[in-house]
Amino acid sequence: MCQLLGMNCNIPTDILFSFEGFCARGGHTDEHSDGWGIAFFEDTGCRLFIDSKASTSSPVAEMVRNYPIRSKNVIAHIRKATIGEVSLVNTHPFMRELWGRYWIFAHNGDLEGELPPLAGRFRPVGSTDSEHAFCLILETLVDRFGYTEPDKPQLTRALGEITATLASYGVFNFLLSDGRYLFAHCSTDLYYVVRQAPFSTAHLIDQDVTVDFREVTSPDDRVAVIATKPLTDNEAWTTMTAGQLLVFENGLPQPCQTM
Amino acid sequence: MCQLLGMNCNIPTDILFSFEGFCARGGHTDEHSDGWGIAFFEDTGCRLFIDSKASTSSPVAEMVRNYPIRSKNVIAHIRKATIGEVSLVNTHPFMRELWGRYWIFAHNGDLEGELPPLAGRFRPVGSTDSEHAFCLILETLVDRFGYTEPDKPQLTRALGEITATLASYGVFNFLLSDGRYLFAHCSTDLYYVVRQAPFSTAHLIDQDVTVDFREVTSPDDRVAVIATKPLTDNEAWTTMTAGQLLVFENGLPQPCQTM
Repeated sequence: MCQLLGMNCNIPTDILFSFEGFCARGGHTDEHSDGWGIAFFEDTGCRLFIDSKASTSSPVAEMVRNYPIRSKNVIAHIRKATIGEVSLVNTHPFMRELWGRYWIFAHNGDLEGELPPLAGRFRPVGSTDSEHAFCLILETLVDRFGYTEPDKPQLTRALGEITATLASYGVFNFLLSDGRYLFAHCSTDLYYVVRQAPFSTAHLIDQDVTVDFREVTSPDDRVAVIATKPLTDNEAWTTMTAGQLLVFENGLPQPCQTM
Repeated sequence: MCQLLGMNCNIPTDILFSFEGFCARGGHTDEHSDGWGIAFFEDTGCRLFIDSKASTSSPVAEMVRNYPIRSKNVIAHIRKATIGEVSLVNTHPFMRELWGRYWIFAHNGDLEGELPPLAGRFRPVGSTDSEHAFCLILETLVDRFGYTEPDKPQLTRALGEITATLASYGVFNFLLSDGRYLFAHCSTDLYYVVRQAPFSTAHLIDQDVTVDFREVTSPDDRVAVIATKPLTDNEAWTTMTAGQLLVFENGLPQPCQTM
């Protein structure tokens, strides 16, 4: 199984502290060493770094660890290959464009059986069930709304329905973002924490590193971090429930209806 | 004006030598300091690194300079902003997916007047004429072939026609690749060199660096390098002519018909 990490904030924030602990799971404190990737939205622009090496030995991860990219939406993934060979093309997150926005998707879990076929508007480049599911999500959005972007209630309702359909194929923990919203769906394992004033300290589980957020934040900052397993051992992480789909905006989660 | 760098090879090759000289033009030996980007195909997978900092001071460029990624198709770009503000979203190369392949595009020049509108299947995320033109290329391919991938003669003929249409709007030097072929179009400035046995030495123009290709190649290797201006001062670079569209495959250029 893979691991997911997401961040959604009200102001651009660097993810270095969380990434430090997450990265250690890619071959160091855990066995997810079949590649990793991270996507940073900067306004509507998006940077996607992927590497088929383990995150603990990747020169790209080393660069990301030392380059504080400030972003309101980040999605990262470390891979333990189950479906699809170990190669760059099968490395999450995946990126596509729809409605003049980049969309980023990363998945944890296996979908079983044959997924519905794709018409061709979006097509996987690699061989994972995950990329196929991502293409199905986007294709269904186009089928429903055409090339006119829906508003947030329409979008969240549609994603709720698509997610419920795809989740029936197996384990479908995922993170999805268009640079404004970050959608998080839990089948089995997903936790989140919202950091806001009054800020305190946090201590990583996977590395002996502590940060005092009072020193690096402003009173209005709000940051949500979402992960397959809690990253810190002294904060109150909320356990997402099976079938729960949340949409994070400005660091705050709201429920989406799944059918 | 921006600068372009492309590489097309018959076996995966690292671009470090050429990138070294090219990178120096992004704020050091030339003024193209409004961001830069590079895309590496690895089989069908693709890694796209972009940064809105000058390539001479970018941590991402520093990492790329020290990480020999082997690729059969590479496209790089350094930007001097003319149309569209300096921001990550306007940084070339651009990436989209079509026919289950990633497509990468970078452009040098300005297109003037109003480009034809887009139906929505591909839409620019940023505000450059370049990304709009890229979306038009892909949209026209879908209009012509639907979601069934054409063969190479059909594809090159179609690209020749689309290119001729778009080139009528202004200066349209570009590099385009789907990971198999690398298309290079010259309006005003584009040069290439094909390196193959017997290999010799090459000396950069922008840095005092020499490489002896005999030490780093096998007899069957063939590498084409395409650039806005020649990168070395002791090799025979071929000047592309105005209106010329070439398709490079396995390090060899072939002409495409433009209408």
